[in-house]
Amino acid sequence: MTKQFDGSHLNRLTEAINQTYVDMVGVNHIDGGNLPHRSEIVGSLEKILEVIFPGFDRKLPSSLEDVTRQTPKLLEEIYHSLYDQICRVFYYQCGTGRDCQNCDATERIKTSIYALLDFLPQLREIVKKDVASAYAGDPAASSYDEIILSYPGIKAITIQRLAHVLYLTKAPLIPRMMTEYAHGITGIDIHPGAALGQGVFIDHGTGVIIGETAVIGNNVRIYQGVTLGALNFPKDACGMLIKGAKRHPTIGNNVTIYAGAAVLGDIVIGDNCVIGGNVWLTESLPAGTKVTASISEYNVRYAGEKK
Amino acid sequence: MTKQFDGSHLNRLTEAINQTYVDMVGVNHIDGGNLPHRSEIVGSLEKILEVIFPGFDRKLPSSLEDVTRQTPKLLEEIYHSLYDQICRVFYYQCGTGRDCQNCDATERIKTSIYALLDFLPQLREIVKKDVASAYAGDPAASSYDEIILSYPGIKAITIQRLAHVLYLTKAPLIPRMMTEYAHGITGIDIHPGAALGQGVFIDHGTGVIIGETAVIGNNVRIYQGVTLGALNFPKDACGMLIKGAKRHPTIGNNVTIYAGAAVLGDIVIGDNCVIGGNVWLTESLPAGTKVTASISEYNVRYAGEKK
Amino acid sequence: MTKQFDGSHLNRLTEAINQTYVDMVGVNHIDGGNLPHRSEIVGSLEKILEVIFPGFDRKLPSSLEDVTRQTPKLLEEIYHSLYDQICRVFYYQCGTGRDCQNCDATERIKTSIYALLDFLPQLREIVKKDVASAYAGDPAASSYDEIILSYPGIKAITIQRLAHVLYLTKAPLIPRMMTEYAHGITGIDIHPGAALGQGVFIDHGTGVIIGETAVIGNNVRIYQGVTLGALNFPKDACGMLIKGAKRHPTIGNNVTIYAGAAVLGDIVIGDNCVIGGNVWLTESLPAGTKVTASISEYNVRYAGEKK
Repeated sequence: MTKQFDGSHLNRLTEAINQTYVDMVGVNHIDGGNLPHRSEIVGSLEKILEVIFPGFDRKLPSSLEDVTRQTPKLLEEIYHSLYDQICRVFYYQCGTGRDCQNCDATERIKTSIYALLDFLPQLREIVKKDVASAYAGDPAASSYDEIILSYPGIKAITIQRLAHVLYLTKAPLIPRMMTEYAHGITGIDIHPGAALGQGVFIDHGTGVIIGETAVIGNNVRIYQGVTLGALNFPKDACGMLIKGAKRHPTIGNNVTIYAGAAVLGDIVIGDNCVIGGNVWLTESLPAGTKVTASISEYNVRYAGEKK
Repeated sequence: MTKQFDGSHLNRLTEAINQTYVDMVGVNHIDGGNLPHRSEIVGSLEKILEVIFPGFDRKLPSSLEDVTRQTPKLLEEIYHSLYDQICRVFYYQCGTGRDCQNCDATERIKTSIYALLDFLPQLREIVKKDVASAYAGDPAASSYDEIILSYPGIKAITIQRLAHVLYLTKAPLIPRMMTEYAHGITGIDIHPGAALGQGVFIDHGTGVIIGETAVIGNNVRIYQGVTLGALNFPKDACGMLIKGAKRHPTIGNNVTIYAGAAVLGDIVIGDNCVIGGNVWLTESLPAGTKVTASISEYNVRYAGEKK
Repeated sequence: MTKQFDGSHLNRLTEAINQTYVDMVGVNHIDGGNLPHRSEIVGSLEKILEVIFPGFDRKLPSSLEDVTRQTPKLLEEIYHSLYDQICRVFYYQCGTGRDCQNCDATERIKTSIYALLDFLPQLREIVKKDVASAYAGDPAASSYDEIILSYPGIKAITIQRLAHVLYLTKAPLIPRMMTEYAHGITGIDIHPGAALGQGVFIDHGTGVIIGETAVIGNNVRIYQGVTLGALNFPKDACGMLIKGAKRHPTIGNNVTIYAGAAVLGDIVIGDNCVIGGNVWLTESLPAGTKVTASISEYNVRYAGEKK
């Protein structure tokens, strides 16, 4: 065997693959406008996180003067990178792939990018409450710095809060790419549509899933493997799924949801409820309710007992 | 304390570590042939994904002419990178670490690499069904493009389908390295040995595990945290595990398995079954069966009630 | 709309953000000492893994002579990179941000870095037992090499063993950053405080969580989604969490814990116990006990039966 790809084999295979590019639509992106590019989206996010958590990702220590002087430079970089990506998705949505006179894409681009940027000062305050909530809720947390440097929940929630602002401006594709980036590095999958309150703490986080139409109050604590999901998918008369219908839970303030619990459907969990580990919940709960799984159903066989 | 590593300390430590390289076998790879290299495997996979999803990971828009012209170049790059890696593992398996006359490694290398490449046109069709299945199954999915750009299940399944082809050619190490790459970035762990049908949709996906001898039908929907695993491990007369024995479930067509369910052992789940969340299933089900966990075992304490 | 960030808008936003840097403490790291840097920590870890698993991540094959000659060079690189990072965290803890005469930071830096480096020869032996345990426990494992190249549990456990040594020397921040790096790439979250025995095998691993004060014996096997967690958090008289109190389980030797089980609180699981999948356990078990979840609570509806 030679190390070369056999020439006629290569030709046949090239032809077979290229034919599918002509024949099959839906899984190509050819002759269309630009799509947003993952590495650009991630780069913008990392720069935004530098604005939100100043000095945490520097190799050298930062003085206040350094940091404040750098702010406009960072903001301009974020603007340019996001501007390009947001143009892509609105022109993609518009279908022309470029600026035109047929729709208000240009206006929506402007609205979308400024909504995100203008959110940053407020996000700084919200994030501080998330960090405080983690510190208050986890005996293993030894400092705010440790939480910012190493708690995946903080990163996932902060990225979702950014994606949510873009989602509200109806920017396509980018919000979900942002939260999926967070999902990939943290195991926490919060849809950009979910509306999160303040002081949310997600501990450990692997396997947490929060659906598109979930609403979460303040000071909610969520452990690993919790699903706030849909129970049924509303369908239209043709049996097609209705996209966007409210189908995920609304969680009150000061609720704790322990590991592995599934809270499903468009139900309301009142303030101060506690939902135990592995509980499978499909009905609303009045405020102050505590639900735990009974452990009576276990089989216990001690050493020496017969099977 | 100086910033230098103390010289005699460094010498003692070097000697202690090097001694373990001589004394301990099993966790070294010294004086052996080349092993496959993770970054090369990942690079090949990313190029293959470019062939499968043309135009999705480009910074500039792609015309049909651009894309089709690039196909043979991409295929040649994939060939060369994979050829080197596949040589490594077959020569590794052969034990000589290089081409020789003692076995049919050369023939198997050729079979293996062409099996993978020749699979690509068909894979394009299969992947389209996977994307369609995701679109039909998830109300949050707004377009095929969104699914391709941001659904981890598509990436994990596509990589596993590639790894499975190599697995069937008995290529060592590489198939598992491929699926473990997907596991790392998606949380979805599908063994390369699993045989997947068409139109498989894994939603969210974190914590999904599909074992080596699992068989999955068409149009199967699997949610986060589902395990298709083994219940018992067959052992030989010496008490050693028998590698490769069928020990994972066979899932029929149109089956839905909700979050956290565990389906275990060499059982058969018939067509159109529905397995509820958190169900722990170790017995076969006839077609059309629906199994859900009762929620009668929960303790519910309302606000104001005594404990 | 121009592609430029509107100048007065940029000025207003810069001012608003910079004001939060002055007003809000706790989520800035400004005018403080250096913090440890994630990419440096990860770089050191990857170099240490090269010492532990020689030859596995080389593009070219390695002779014993190559590998042993490289050891002191690698050790020096690890030393310099870690020395800088460990200085940062002890000076950070000391509060001065640099070497000074007020505390024994310099002494603790020295203790910490040599504790880690001197652990490496022993770690090689421990890791070999972990690999052997994986091979003995998984019918899908075809060789030690496959386990080292592609099993996430090995990587997560090895990194935690390193982080644990630093944790014992009371180095702040770095241990948790190390284990969180492992968590991000494997989905396995083992706190650096946990004390692991020998021959630990974590299969698949996604969603495994092992808390700060957990103690694990020898030859323990843990599957995906297992939590060794806290049940209650001890609080002080002011209602504040007591940091560091023993609150996680102690697991004996030869224990197996199946997928999704939660073992919670400062309880003791005796030698040779088996804890079934999805079991929720909050009480100690004597040696040899087997606990499984009954499946009597399921609702099964066969095809054609009425709802």
